[in-house]
Amino acid sequence: MNNQHPLVINFTPTGMVPTKAMNPNVPITVAEIVEQVHEAYEIGITLAHLHARNETDGAPTWKAAVYARIFEGIRQHCPDLVLCASLSGRNFNVFEKRAEVLSLRPDMGSLTLSSLNFHSQASTNSPEMIQQLALKMLEEGVHPEWEIFDLGMLHYGHYLMRKNILKPPYYVNVIVGNVAGMQANLAELGILLAQLPPDAVWALGGIGQQQLAANTLAIATGGGVRIGLEDNLYYDTGRKIQATNTSLLKRIHELAAIFERPIMSPSAFGQLGFYNNYR
Amino acid sequence: MNNQHPLVINFTPTGMVPTKAMNPNVPITVAEIVEQVHEAYEIGITLAHLHARNETDGAPTWKAAVYARIFEGIRQHCPDLVLCASLSGRNFNVFEKRAEVLSLRPDMGSLTLSSLNFHSQASTNSPEMIQQLALKMLEEGVHPEWEIFDLGMLHYGHYLMRKNILKPPYYVNVIVGNVAGMQANLAELGILLAQLPPDAVWALGGIGQQQLAANTLAIATGGGVRIGLEDNLYYDTGRKIQATNTSLLKRIHELAAIFERPIMSPSAFGQLGFYNNYR
Repeated sequence: MNNQHPLVINFTPTGMVPTKAMNPNVPITVAEIVEQVHEAYEIGITLAHLHARNETDGAPTWKAAVYARIFEGIRQHCPDLVLCASLSGRNFNVFEKRAEVLSLRPDMGSLTLSSLNFHSQASTNSPEMIQQLALKMLEEGVHPEWEIFDLGMLHYGHYLMRKNILKPPYYVNVIVGNVAGMQANLAELGILLAQLPPDAVWALGGIGQQQLAANTLAIATGGGVRIGLEDNLYYDTGRKIQATNTSLLKRIHELAAIFERPIMSPSAFGQLGFYNNYR
Repeated sequence: MNNQHPLVINFTPTGMVPTKAMNPNVPITVAEIVEQVHEAYEIGITLAHLHARNETDGAPTWKAAVYARIFEGIRQHCPDLVLCASLSGRNFNVFEKRAEVLSLRPDMGSLTLSSLNFHSQASTNSPEMIQQLALKMLEEGVHPEWEIFDLGMLHYGHYLMRKNILKPPYYVNVIVGNVAGMQANLAELGILLAQLPPDAVWALGGIGQQQLAANTLAIATGGGVRIGLEDNLYYDTGRKIQATNTSLLKRIHELAAIFERPIMSPSAFGQLGFYNNYR
């Protein structure tokens, strides 16, 4: 890849953690998530990484019925957009729940490649769970979105490649800035990126204030970006200006323009092999 | 540190996983553990990292009563040896159990600085658990043995230093070769070691076939070693020769002699601040 390589923008409008109380711009309901993905699509994104929430209390949910409404709503306006469902189990760590959305055959599904700690919570992803989710994705034609917070998680990805549990095409998110993970440090990222699978499409994301740094490092060096309120609630380093998904995305487009990088279209990305095999 | 710096040998005779069925030389009973630590002490070690087992079925136990018998047995012959108790919670992840041995005021206690995956099992160490264990160690005058399997775990150590939950003197084990952790890779280790706390005493350990490589990298560059059957059951790369704690330890002494490194004595290490504060 080089600087003129089309820029993959992985849009992450909401997540497991953000609430309206933290930032009222976070989309929670199906209608809000769909609307903000539509807006982002108009600005220019490549794929959307989606988490569903209960309509009642706004808490994360694994239910396929909620994901189905999100996917349908998005596809009415953005039929070619690549859709990635979260299989995170932070709050419901049971295979049947984590895998339920795969029955809808989204294009991609997130796969966190080890257990790890976040600031206030452990996220347990046992080897057995990871392998079960990966095998179920193979069965449903869903492509894994590798979630990498540290070197060992990439090594585990290689291990699952050798076992034929992870297959190409490879898409790898590297997320820095977690308190117990890698940081936006050129040496750490350099070692990690040098060990990616051949031909992997990769993107850098960052938590909180490291989002902008991570995104910019990727834009400057040929990678993609993971961008949205899921990882970062503030627009500025002083944490005075609450971000919106649109404001964050527009800044990525400003940087992309400076680097003369076109945005990779959803269909170009899909044609790399990231559309669901049954689509 | 330089090549002539005294070599810290952290002796790990048994662990949570090895059984007599895997290698009959693994010490399981109190008597066996005590005897093998005595032998190692005669050959030359600096500290011993200890796990207790049930006498009945050989399974890991957290019980202070068992640890007490191990400590007493060792101290009869090796009164100056620095003793480190495992606070691992892989099989009993409750604070009261993990912390029970601290009431005995060992010199040191192990502290794994994040959740992680091993080959077949997740090891969950939540942020709250890590902080509770560290605070309890401060109270009991016990010095943490940092267990680091990846970059993020070191970053979390720095975070706890900034919060005054981890204090000097610092002792850091870096363990490579876990399937979902760092590997015995010069670049990865270089980045990690460059970010250790100031004046940290560090040792490299490796799982399985990476034990010899990790140990040798440390001996060649001024670090210490973590050595014993806990991490590696075979003496040779072909996995034909079952190791003994003595055979592994003697090979370390051979390497140390080639590098002209004297072994750090238990009392020299204790005087760096690693004896229990109430000793």
